[in-house]
Amino acid sequence: MNKSKQDKSRLVKSNERLDDLELDDLMIIQKENGYKFSTDSVLLSDFAKVKPSNFYVDLCSGSGVVAILVAHKNNAQNVLAVEIQQEMSEMAVRSVEYNDLSSRINVLNENLNKLPEILGYEKVDVITVNPPYNEVGETSSQNEIAIATHEICTNLSEICLTCSKILKYGGKVYMVHRADRLADILVELRKNKIEPKVLRFVYPKKDKQPNVVLIEAKKGAQSGLKFISPLILNNDDGSETDELKRIYNRKNNL
Amino acid sequence: MNKSKQDKSRLVKSNERLDDLELDDLMIIQKENGYKFSTDSVLLSDFAKVKPSNFYVDLCSGSGVVAILVAHKNNAQNVLAVEIQQEMSEMAVRSVEYNDLSSRINVLNENLNKLPEILGYEKVDVITVNPPYNEVGETSSQNEIAIATHEICTNLSEICLTCSKILKYGGKVYMVHRADRLADILVELRKNKIEPKVLRFVYPKKDKQPNVVLIEAKKGAQSGLKFISPLILNNDDGSETDELKRIYNRKNNL
Repeated sequence: MNKSKQDKSRLVKSNERLDDLELDDLMIIQKENGYKFSTDSVLLSDFAKVKPSNFYVDLCSGSGVVAILVAHKNNAQNVLAVEIQQEMSEMAVRSVEYNDLSSRINVLNENLNKLPEILGYEKVDVITVNPPYNEVGETSSQNEIAIATHEICTNLSEICLTCSKILKYGGKVYMVHRADRLADILVELRKNKIEPKVLRFVYPKKDKQPNVVLIEAKKGAQSGLKFISPLILNNDDGSETDELKRIYNRKNNL
Repeated sequence: MNKSKQDKSRLVKSNERLDDLELDDLMIIQKENGYKFSTDSVLLSDFAKVKPSNFYVDLCSGSGVVAILVAHKNNAQNVLAVEIQQEMSEMAVRSVEYNDLSSRINVLNENLNKLPEILGYEKVDVITVNPPYNEVGETSSQNEIAIATHEICTNLSEICLTCSKILKYGGKVYMVHRADRLADILVELRKNKIEPKVLRFVYPKKDKQPNVVLIEAKKGAQSGLKFISPLILNNDDGSETDELKRIYNRKNNL
């Protein structure tokens, strides 16, 4: 195993680092000074459910962390990770290779609005997406981090439109987003005939506002929302809650 | 006081009863065998905020309970309670009189979609509404209870359209509704340029699904939701939580 890891070290460039995903031996390559994946990606990968035979697409894939975690947890065999930023998608290719998932996960460096043309309409069973959270007016930068976190290259409206085009009837979207944008999210999904079905609000602490929301939506479904019990990340003393430990696979801390 | 109450007893008909609203001396007249107001009306009257000088309208007013509670709590001087069912609105008139609020609360027996014509456009500061919760297909009855609880005479779409027409720019709607219809609610409000601003989910118990949601929305506002901490109604042993006692004014039980 160590030898294999040593061989693989060639996959990590000098300005990059290798971070442990703390799930089995999964690792992710990230730039030392670039965008780093956040807890939200881990929460999304816990929330999403994919069958092994599904055609599963991860949009706004960044370093590929959600695609890698979801593919591993669900034994998904047919995964496409789509990222618009060339450098990030190239890094995602190497992370996929590092984790020996190249036979199951393809990485595509493309604007997501090209997907209907590339994949065809109504081909996809499940989509995950951790979109840029912030509106474009909230930054003046155009660098890697700004693009990953602000609606510079895409936005909620384009994402929902693309999802609607590539999803099969009955196909599902799992999204993580800012809770304060819930109205935007539900309106855009509904507008594109993808009906919001399940919400889970994420609270930094019990008595705080939820700052994140997880959304499951289904193309062509009837109206009617269910709620999963609130996800509290930290106890009052700042320590991780049992639920967050479970999600991070830290239940039986070694 | 007793004499006054005795005088007032003429306001209650033989098939009716007088229920104590447990807030100062407020009472409400309800039919023995008709629709009774529920906890949701009390939650809404706690959630809504009205200034004394506001022109405040309660839609789908039923027995007038929300209008009476909100007017009393907020010292509102200019209140209109609108109810489509003739018998209920007539009963609401007598409840208003019973509580000596006739100088402040008018009751109008009318279909709410006539309000723009009657009141004019953009005249109202605050609206409360406890709409019929259920879709029309969920009942085959047409009686008082069915009309109060199902979208027979009006629906969410008509209500939001009417609110948009009669509300001033910056005016507010406070609504209570079924949590599983949240997507419908946010979509209809947004469609009518009334932006959802605050949500409070209501849970029957801590570990249950929220079954009710309180919504504050503002005409012409920017997108962006805030969340008030979840409202849990009952403790695990079935007793009322402190928060529900506060809302029911039972903090210092006599």
